[in-house]
Amino acid sequence: MECVLLGTGGMMPMPDRLLTSLAVRLGGSCYLFDAGEGVQLGLKRTHLGVAGLKVVAISHLHADHCLGLPGLLMLRAQIAHPGPLTILGPPGLCDFVRQNHAILQFHINYPIHCVEWQSQEAAVAYQDHQVRILWQPLEHTRFCLGFRLEEPPRPGKFHPERARAMGIPEGPHWGRLQRGEAVSSPSGMCVTPDQVLGPPRRGRHLCYAVDTRPCAGLEMLCREVDLAFVEGMFLPEDGRHADAKGHLTVVEAADVVHRSGARRAVLVHISPRYTAEDLPTLEKAARERFGAAHIGRDFERYPVSFVD
Amino acid sequence: MECVLLGTGGMMPMPDRLLTSLAVRLGGSCYLFDAGEGVQLGLKRTHLGVAGLKVVAISHLHADHCLGLPGLLMLRAQIAHPGPLTILGPPGLCDFVRQNHAILQFHINYPIHCVEWQSQEAAVAYQDHQVRILWQPLEHTRFCLGFRLEEPPRPGKFHPERARAMGIPEGPHWGRLQRGEAVSSPSGMCVTPDQVLGPPRRGRHLCYAVDTRPCAGLEMLCREVDLAFVEGMFLPEDGRHADAKGHLTVVEAADVVHRSGARRAVLVHISPRYTAEDLPTLEKAARERFGAAHIGRDFERYPVSFVD
Repeated sequence: MECVLLGTGGMMPMPDRLLTSLAVRLGGSCYLFDAGEGVQLGLKRTHLGVAGLKVVAISHLHADHCLGLPGLLMLRAQIAHPGPLTILGPPGLCDFVRQNHAILQFHINYPIHCVEWQSQEAAVAYQDHQVRILWQPLEHTRFCLGFRLEEPPRPGKFHPERARAMGIPEGPHWGRLQRGEAVSSPSGMCVTPDQVLGPPRRGRHLCYAVDTRPCAGLEMLCREVDLAFVEGMFLPEDGRHADAKGHLTVVEAADVVHRSGARRAVLVHISPRYTAEDLPTLEKAARERFGAAHIGRDFERYPVSFVD
Repeated sequence: MECVLLGTGGMMPMPDRLLTSLAVRLGGSCYLFDAGEGVQLGLKRTHLGVAGLKVVAISHLHADHCLGLPGLLMLRAQIAHPGPLTILGPPGLCDFVRQNHAILQFHINYPIHCVEWQSQEAAVAYQDHQVRILWQPLEHTRFCLGFRLEEPPRPGKFHPERARAMGIPEGPHWGRLQRGEAVSSPSGMCVTPDQVLGPPRRGRHLCYAVDTRPCAGLEMLCREVDLAFVEGMFLPEDGRHADAKGHLTVVEAADVVHRSGARRAVLVHISPRYTAEDLPTLEKAARERFGAAHIGRDFERYPVSFVD
């Protein structure tokens, strides 16, 4: 699993900082979070392309998070057989796509499955054989969603010495046990996977949450994730803007990820008021509260490994 | 008068070639032609900003020509008192702006005057104290407009020797004559401006025409302009794409500007299939037909001087 930042800015695209967007790559698929104006440029700069793009999750209907979607849909239609695309987001998102499609009349050669958040829905927004994506409302000036991407639990660790002790020699039976099947030993004894495997191990968990004040939904999304991509838009001394416009300072963000038990955090959606030279100052402020915080830079890649 | 290319690409924004957009600067005002995704980046890279932006003319409702408009409107709302903005373009443009404004709920602090082309309308789309903008339908896969920007004629050249011969000595009377007023000589004779001025001199003329096949409208727009910004999307050997998709090859473009008596031409809306290394080849092909043709590069500036 690899996370690629296609941009790290908030509010408007800048020549040296594109709008915040996160691509998560896994098993040939790509799950994209947010698509502001110019998201295509990030995809091209990082050479990710759109061939594997399976899901686009949009946090909210402010332009800096969704205006790149029509261009992205068009870019994807350049591929011969791109397969279906799922779009997740707030109520109104499907209208936004439909209306722009109707007016701009662009060519789409694949089915689009557009799923809008509804209060009565379960927290699982999407699921395939590799991951599930959960969503939670956040607290912003518009209805805004945060997302959490989770792999299913992996089977526990296989203990060869236990298998041998139960009379199962190395061979195809070991594979069957590791895949969760019961087997018979040469002496006719039935051996079940739980007898030779450790407890199930957690898959990798990520979250992506931007454009919010600190809130319960944000903490739920960050809870014990391996890597949290969270907004850190302002320095604490500019906190009045965060408060007025429904954003997080780097210190508020660091506090939330720390309280939530996240392992690492990458702060994104940086205000255009800060230049590249200011980023170490933002990082320092965040790290005073959470040592594993980092200020994201465009096109950075973060491999996410299994912990155990 | 200065022309600034904010981008020179067609179809999709590329990291090294933004979408075609032309800013014309004159007397503190800016007249912009086309606004595809990422047009903000071009405005920032060239340090033009949006303070002087008075008119945005959109050629047609394909995404690579208009999807940057919402972001541009938002950027302009960052200014305290930006003054009214005129948007010119094809039927459907006002709906495009209105619908995106309604869904994305962005803040606008200035009046927007949106003018759509109508068949019964005169060819003058816009006029202020400095310029007028004319429009003409072109031939593309969608209804597409080309534009021509014209300064009004300037007063003829003042001939001091004629004024002196009519008994008007150097002084405030010269200025009045140059501004078009009649004056009396000390001996009581009435002197009119036409007696001391040469014939009216043409103002500067430009055209911006992209996404079209060769057609009469295109020639009208280019007729004797000082500088023609015209699409040159393909090399002649890729002409089948130009024909199928309603575009111009560099050779077709060069032929049109040559026939139209344009003084200079800058070819834009380059296909993403060509890299920066291919551009000299495009330029060579164009120049074989029209020596004053140049392939535009992002962020280039072209001063336009008076000829006489």
